[in-house]
Amino acid sequence: MRQAMALAQRALYVPAPNPRVGCVIARDGKLIAQGATQHVGGAHAEIMALRDLESHGLSAEGATVYISLEPCSHYGRTPPCVDALIKAAPSRVVFAHFDPNPSVAGRGLQALKAAGIDVTVGVCADEALEINPGFVSRMTRGVPYVWLKVAASIDGRTALPNGVSQWITGPQARADGHHWRARSCIVLTGIGTVRTDNPRLDVRHVTTPRQPRRGVIDPGLDIRADAAVLAGGDAVIFTANNDPEKIDRLSAQGARVVLVPDESNPSSAALPAARKRVDLMAMMRWLAANDINEVHVEAGEGMNGALIAAGCVDELVLYMAPMLLGDGKGLARIPAIARLEDAARFEFTDVTRLGSDIRIRARDMARWADLQSKLHLG
Amino acid sequence: MRQAMALAQRALYVPAPNPRVGCVIARDGKLIAQGATQHVGGAHAEIMALRDLESHGLSAEGATVYISLEPCSHYGRTPPCVDALIKAAPSRVVFAHFDPNPSVAGRGLQALKAAGIDVTVGVCADEALEINPGFVSRMTRGVPYVWLKVAASIDGRTALPNGVSQWITGPQARADGHHWRARSCIVLTGIGTVRTDNPRLDVRHVTTPRQPRRGVIDPGLDIRADAAVLAGGDAVIFTANNDPEKIDRLSAQGARVVLVPDESNPSSAALPAARKRVDLMAMMRWLAANDINEVHVEAGEGMNGALIAAGCVDELVLYMAPMLLGDGKGLARIPAIARLEDAARFEFTDVTRLGSDIRIRARDMARWADLQSKLHLG
Repeated sequence: MRQAMALAQRALYVPAPNPRVGCVIARDGKLIAQGATQHVGGAHAEIMALRDLESHGLSAEGATVYISLEPCSHYGRTPPCVDALIKAAPSRVVFAHFDPNPSVAGRGLQALKAAGIDVTVGVCADEALEINPGFVSRMTRGVPYVWLKVAASIDGRTALPNGVSQWITGPQARADGHHWRARSCIVLTGIGTVRTDNPRLDVRHVTTPRQPRRGVIDPGLDIRADAAVLAGGDAVIFTANNDPEKIDRLSAQGARVVLVPDESNPSSAALPAARKRVDLMAMMRWLAANDINEVHVEAGEGMNGALIAAGCVDELVLYMAPMLLGDGKGLARIPAIARLEDAARFEFTDVTRLGSDIRIRARDMARWADLQSKLHLG
Repeated sequence: MRQAMALAQRALYVPAPNPRVGCVIARDGKLIAQGATQHVGGAHAEIMALRDLESHGLSAEGATVYISLEPCSHYGRTPPCVDALIKAAPSRVVFAHFDPNPSVAGRGLQALKAAGIDVTVGVCADEALEINPGFVSRMTRGVPYVWLKVAASIDGRTALPNGVSQWITGPQARADGHHWRARSCIVLTGIGTVRTDNPRLDVRHVTTPRQPRRGVIDPGLDIRADAAVLAGGDAVIFTANNDPEKIDRLSAQGARVVLVPDESNPSSAALPAARKRVDLMAMMRWLAANDINEVHVEAGEGMNGALIAAGCVDELVLYMAPMLLGDGKGLARIPAIARLEDAARFEFTDVTRLGSDIRIRARDMARWADLQSKLHLG
């Protein structure tokens, strides 16, 4: 199963919006074939492993198949893997956790059992969730898995008072940041960052077979036509401004404009469209509905704080540089609290050195426990 | 030599103001005796190792002696170790680096050589400096080695806007903080922290054979007679206020009042005594002159910032708790800069998990290189 996980992990940039899955076929404790899910529309891990088996002139009969996810039982973009498995007739199938896709959700297990195949579920389930948090989130919560990528000094400053932030961290940390972009389905920022840094938001410092989408939260549709993020023509602009002229202009540039005004309170509803805020949770639901599993946010303290306050954030990916900046911009502008008990609680899941910087991953504990519970884990 | 280092490391809380030293005697690559420096006035590591040797009825003849520091050649509180070594007549002595004490500084080496003993210098010298940065600093720079201990949230907040900071970190991080207090010669804070938290500043959560001194930077002599730090009667108050009444009152409580007014600029000189600032560098020189090797600072953002700006700080010991606090107090109030190139540069030397928190050590690179150069290292 560890090898199946490793195969899934290696496919991190590849199959979105499908989950990353690895499959290993073993006989007498020896690996005889393996595969990982291909690009969307391509073969799933099980099919790849069965093909690998065939190419070696071997049969699955009497073998054990290890998969990092329940095999699919439905016709999606490809025929159900469970049918191919039953045809191959291994004696046993082991998978990490049930497919949270409501079209599968246990049906793969039932079909295998009905075919007389021995099935074990729940091996390395937590590790498997680590590999596909976005897919599980989209399928079970209807929103993507969201992380904030932040580069900060030891004293938690992400930019100088004059806005300068390039570069706080070194080349290894920046390349690692692109790894996180590459695994995501969309790289999202706010209009403030577009104005200050004019980022392209594409993946450059690591090799990837696909580029994630790029998105800008721009309540007033203030983005300039020459903004770097609009180059390439597939950007998504989330706005509260329904100004048809502005929308037409952006659409003509190939951008997708999505209207998600915040109508949550009367005072907001009364505002002119150009001054409304974006309903961040509605934006997340739109993203999930549009096959976005994982959202990589690279924004300023204002947008970071708004996303946290709106309950949209699962994880912080913090790159800390060994410097003190004193005054400047913070990580996230969130409302002040009066008691430490009221602080937003995370859990450090990983600390890694990257050149002279360190990367600290911190996960929202309650949200992660919720995802685990959806898979009947922990 | 590794074992000699380990012995010195184990004596971390013990011999101040003497350096922590370990000594191992080996024959044919086998350890036959060992020792570490005792409390001030007690035996040094070499003497302890020779006694250990004797207690086993063994002789040093033909053996190799490994010491984490050059053996002393002068009459301090104890007779010179180098004489005892020469008398024991090992065939070889290996030590990590020269004793930076100007009364020794190579004389130990010369005496051993003159006695026909083979000597090797410079083995694990950097590691040895890590064990005695304060002793080396005091001897070579005339100031102590100073670290700031800070407990902060992921977003670099050390207290809520209302001043609440107990407890941001968990019990393991707090116990580790007491380890750092225990190894220091003085635990120093500012009058602001005394007012807000009224800390005792003593070592409680780890077992130590000696308590460090306690110090308060209190420019105006505003400390209340019932401040917890004054209990025990050995606190040092650094002040700019020469008010004889206040000084007498504190002295009567057993506190030592040290006048170090900042006279560096005319506007400061013109201030009334009660409003002057403390000359932090003069305070550091006073501390070194009074046998303080290592200073543990546990203060608020104002004092931390002032110490950094005054060029007094060698290291940050940051405990990061997995929470976001939003608005609140920062790590260190230092002047804003306009270019990232002007930021104070550190180096991460260690990241350790402590329960749900992490400890991040960051060292001022230039100051460390300076200490190394004093030992003719790197």
